[in-house]
Amino acid sequence: MNFQAKLTKIALRNDSLVCVGLDPEREKLPKHLLKKQDPIFAFNKEIIDATADLVCAYKPNIAFYESYGIDGLRSLKKTIEYLKGKYPEIPIILDAKRGDIATTSGKYAQEVFAMLGVDAVTVNPYLGYDALEPFLQWRDKGIIILCRTSNPGASDFQDLMVNGEPLYVKVAKRVVAWHKKYKNCLIVVGVTWPKELKKIRSVVGDEIIFLVPGIGTQRGKIESLKPGLNSSKMGLIITSSRSIMYASSNKDFAEVARQKTLELRNEINKIRH
Amino acid sequence: MNFQAKLTKIALRNDSLVCVGLDPEREKLPKHLLKKQDPIFAFNKEIIDATADLVCAYKPNIAFYESYGIDGLRSLKKTIEYLKGKYPEIPIILDAKRGDIATTSGKYAQEVFAMLGVDAVTVNPYLGYDALEPFLQWRDKGIIILCRTSNPGASDFQDLMVNGEPLYVKVAKRVVAWHKKYKNCLIVVGVTWPKELKKIRSVVGDEIIFLVPGIGTQRGKIESLKPGLNSSKMGLIITSSRSIMYASSNKDFAEVARQKTLELRNEINKIRH
Repeated sequence: MNFQAKLTKIALRNDSLVCVGLDPEREKLPKHLLKKQDPIFAFNKEIIDATADLVCAYKPNIAFYESYGIDGLRSLKKTIEYLKGKYPEIPIILDAKRGDIATTSGKYAQEVFAMLGVDAVTVNPYLGYDALEPFLQWRDKGIIILCRTSNPGASDFQDLMVNGEPLYVKVAKRVVAWHKKYKNCLIVVGVTWPKELKKIRSVVGDEIIFLVPGIGTQRGKIESLKPGLNSSKMGLIITSSRSIMYASSNKDFAEVARQKTLELRNEINKIRH
Repeated sequence: MNFQAKLTKIALRNDSLVCVGLDPEREKLPKHLLKKQDPIFAFNKEIIDATADLVCAYKPNIAFYESYGIDGLRSLKKTIEYLKGKYPEIPIILDAKRGDIATTSGKYAQEVFAMLGVDAVTVNPYLGYDALEPFLQWRDKGIIILCRTSNPGASDFQDLMVNGEPLYVKVAKRVVAWHKKYKNCLIVVGVTWPKELKKIRSVVGDEIIFLVPGIGTQRGKIESLKPGLNSSKMGLIITSSRSIMYASSNKDFAEVARQKTLELRNEINKIRH
């Protein structure tokens, strides 16, 4: 089963387009976890167990783990292994925004798909097609290409006008062409830019799934997601990290995370159903 | 001393603009090293000791280490610590091509500068200014921004025309502005694209240093470097990895690597002096 099929299956089962980001920061963890041998893994595990019936994916951002060096990567690996063991039906998206010349991208693809064994990875299009091709070759995986990111500076380069259309539209169109061949492309589109989100759906049509950051801490609005839905009222993976993970810093953090995830799922479903 | 000063000092002392890439692949290592406890570190160490008086920098690409998981990162850490202990005057450039929204870029900056302690890092501009700002804040470090990369697909997006000039020129101009403020910006410009290299030097003026891949295996030519030199016949960090590291796969690999580095340095110096 390829990434897209796996994602659709769980999104339907859990009736959810919510993807919980797993971006742990030691200083934000509930204090009682700091006594544990691996506080980050302990934290992730509780968040996962509390939300697994409410999500369509999990998305660890590797930067948060790398910032703790080898210990951090060990926590990431344990988290991935835990997910694959207990919830093999839920896809894992590694947010890594990788991209290098082909030989080097091949090494990154090796790392994320063969070593870590995740289902999908985010990549950066700036280097062009040959830099992404080593990822695209992993046809059962999801290759999620940055298109219009959620941050304020996204406009700096992504909005530059190229023959009458912005760069992010050029990127979106190239992704459609790659997807025709490889059947495994998705794009990142931040909901903090509602007009752009709408435009991109109109450009790429129904088949391309968007990974959508920006809800929550970044202040994107639920109703702005609507024009991003495809004709099946699917086609989005809506990620939320900080507003779920750190909704409570007490012993009830997992319970509160569940509550927040449930609320988000239901709010999103209101605009879908 | 900031990155640029450290770089210039060693480039003058070693009369060299050559940066040796440290991108180890187990299957390419000389067989006799495979018996060692950490073959990758053993390999790097010999390459370093054989070339330290001929280079202006070393550049490990983190992808090669990450592809071996935690063991690989341990080898990278040992390599960096070895360099910092024995050759503290030689700057270490981590080729990582990172870039994410600001909070996440802050984590990457933490990883590379605080944890690993390298002198410079390569970053991707696609997300815009706020995504790079957490790196730029490390004013003593070198922030090396992708501009016109060496790979064949570089033209896919980097050449798109924006108001009469290609995207890579827009990026170069923004880097000049950032450099005015932070004094720590460099750009990546592949020598596989001689016209573009020349154009970029004419756009950015004298002060911006280029990290230049593409010599050797990627078939860039030494004479194409000439228009990239600044008015002091400096301003370039010319990287070579595979054609130095794997010039011999026998016991004499370090000696042959030295010979190749010496030849490259001298050939480059012919167009400089």
